[in-house]
Amino acid sequence: MREVYVLGVGITTFTRLEYPLVEIAGYPAMMALKESGLSAVDHIYVANMGAGRLNKQTGLASAVVDHLGLTPAGAETIENGPASGASALKEGFMAVASGLHDTVLVTGAERMRAANSLETTDFVATLTHPLAEYIYGVTLPSLAGMFTRLYMDKYGVTTRHLSMVAVKAHANAMLNDFAHLHEPITMDGIEDGPDAQTNNPMVADPLRFYDCCPVSDGGACLILGTADAAKKLGRPRIRLSGVGQATDTHAVHERKDPTEVAAVRLAAAQAMKMAGIRAGDVDVAELHDAFTILEIVESEEAGFFKKGEGHKALEKGLTRIGGQLPINTSGGLKAKGHPVGATGVGQAHEIVLQLRGEAGPRQVKAAKTGFTCNFGGFGNNVVCLVFQREG
Amino acid sequence: MREVYVLGVGITTFTRLEYPLVEIAGYPAMMALKESGLSAVDHIYVANMGAGRLNKQTGLASAVVDHLGLTPAGAETIENGPASGASALKEGFMAVASGLHDTVLVTGAERMRAANSLETTDFVATLTHPLAEYIYGVTLPSLAGMFTRLYMDKYGVTTRHLSMVAVKAHANAMLNDFAHLHEPITMDGIEDGPDAQTNNPMVADPLRFYDCCPVSDGGACLILGTADAAKKLGRPRIRLSGVGQATDTHAVHERKDPTEVAAVRLAAAQAMKMAGIRAGDVDVAELHDAFTILEIVESEEAGFFKKGEGHKALEKGLTRIGGQLPINTSGGLKAKGHPVGATGVGQAHEIVLQLRGEAGPRQVKAAKTGFTCNFGGFGNNVVCLVFQREG
Repeated sequence: MREVYVLGVGITTFTRLEYPLVEIAGYPAMMALKESGLSAVDHIYVANMGAGRLNKQTGLASAVVDHLGLTPAGAETIENGPASGASALKEGFMAVASGLHDTVLVTGAERMRAANSLETTDFVATLTHPLAEYIYGVTLPSLAGMFTRLYMDKYGVTTRHLSMVAVKAHANAMLNDFAHLHEPITMDGIEDGPDAQTNNPMVADPLRFYDCCPVSDGGACLILGTADAAKKLGRPRIRLSGVGQATDTHAVHERKDPTEVAAVRLAAAQAMKMAGIRAGDVDVAELHDAFTILEIVESEEAGFFKKGEGHKALEKGLTRIGGQLPINTSGGLKAKGHPVGATGVGQAHEIVLQLRGEAGPRQVKAAKTGFTCNFGGFGNNVVCLVFQREG
Repeated sequence: MREVYVLGVGITTFTRLEYPLVEIAGYPAMMALKESGLSAVDHIYVANMGAGRLNKQTGLASAVVDHLGLTPAGAETIENGPASGASALKEGFMAVASGLHDTVLVTGAERMRAANSLETTDFVATLTHPLAEYIYGVTLPSLAGMFTRLYMDKYGVTTRHLSMVAVKAHANAMLNDFAHLHEPITMDGIEDGPDAQTNNPMVADPLRFYDCCPVSDGGACLILGTADAAKKLGRPRIRLSGVGQATDTHAVHERKDPTEVAAVRLAAAQAMKMAGIRAGDVDVAELHDAFTILEIVESEEAGFFKKGEGHKALEKGLTRIGGQLPINTSGGLKAKGHPVGATGVGQAHEIVLQLRGEAGPRQVKAAKTGFTCNFGGFGNNVVCLVFQREG
């Protein structure tokens, strides 16, 4: 297989966006094309989860390739729930690695806020098992709530730990112009102070308002290409050096121990093996914290901390910017936002900025190796990526 | 790139199916697994266009991999409108060709008849340009009607030619147990006889009832793998030797001459070039006749007949079973049926049977090279495949 490099990146602010989905996909793509100096590409992948239902649009990839003036390049939409973005990057990786294409544009886009919040909650719930979960009224917050309770009981995680994830995420997002939430929060405000209960009401016990990511519109793009093309750009070369993916039972209750998220473990191990690294080599990571508990869990299953000790690492500040392994420097899904189909590409966008040294006030010093975990379904289809800086 | 072979195939009847979408995807996959002697695969692609809207299901690929007991294999849903099936096969081709995976299961599935016919017509219309076509009430039959009128005016095609496509399709479908329509029709009954106008009412001038494919549920599966794996099966080896894809303007009226379907021409040429063949080498072809005119047009743009002469070849019987180049031996979309996301995989299924010599009463003698054209959007995203028999 050929080595695969990032030739250019782009992103929209994650927020409520009033323009058509094709432009949400197109705008970051135009930024990435400009950065990479390309006016044509061999192929396009669009990562999206909800266009068919929320935006009444199918064949989105065909619309995007036309909108960008990139016909006759081939194009597909890749859907893997909230892990659509990393799945599309993996397809782009294969297209370049196989030798079939030299340049592949991968853009993720979602316009979720076009629908009302009940419709959106139902839409996201359609990623659960249709006969064993969805028809009983399970939503993602309710699944995550039950999961969190099990985790707290088993490993001594408390709601204070969950709030620490939120406070860190919001603080990091303050340093990211493209983040959805620019709202500094404190432990006093959401956990300890006299107004904490009012400020941070219950959503799905034990998860409260600040444990849940916002519903965002947004887009993000990476252009992937060959080593030769990367060398010509005169920027630090960022290699997509590892991809891993694993699935688990579709219904969460069918897992022997639901607190074991085997798909993250397998996907992370695969990606790191392909890249020839160990977890300890990672300098910066973006994890899929749609709910605060997930950052803690994934930091363990990816191998950064021992099982059941992620919350202790968090407590010690190891995952802050300046810590041993900064996690979710972008603000994460929690505060940067979670336009579902775009999220995985957005995670990769942050890692590329970090490895290039272009992350501004949230820059992790001398970051050489980055990792992303994009969590589809409720841990039933996970895609992990490793990026490495060369030169 | 490594060579890629078909290890196993499966299909459901294309019809109205009352069981869940995951089973429509799963049943042909189980047939294909059995045929290939595999109890595990490295990866799964699910081709589907409408689950999010018509079946309120996202992350369908995760559901399928679990349903088949194939976790922890990775899985994605591939959407490219009605060309989703061939797009998914192309992704499977890349996964094996790149060396990333040794066995990839590609299953296409659609459950369209769960919705009523107005909803289904609107759903299919969402593949048109959202701002330049869809909002003005364009539907696929209306677009195809306007296109057909232009073609008739320019090339002397008549409604008799359209009906000849339908009569041939229905005759072939009579020989295919898996076809949706088992209804023998005659020129007398739909074109010339006293009851023709009643039997074959206008849908979108000049297209009548028998010019339009039915709305079908259905699934089809191919398992792709390496040359070594194919050799061990002791069956004729069928190689997926060429893949091609091209896009065109998203809005049909933006094409200089809408009767020129450049994306078919480009995609077919690419696929044939990769396979090292010419159009004249093809022994059997499945073309995307969602409307009768499209079989004629694609038979020209793929290079089988000169532009504007497809209807003459049809008239001469060249495209019948027993003719120079049998087209749509399965019954085509017109009579085999068109479960949109599954169609491209279904086309490939027919070609594999033909090349293996397993097509029963519709067998094309000594077929060695087969071709499929899967037409996404209204010719704005086309994927062509070439299959060749070895040994």
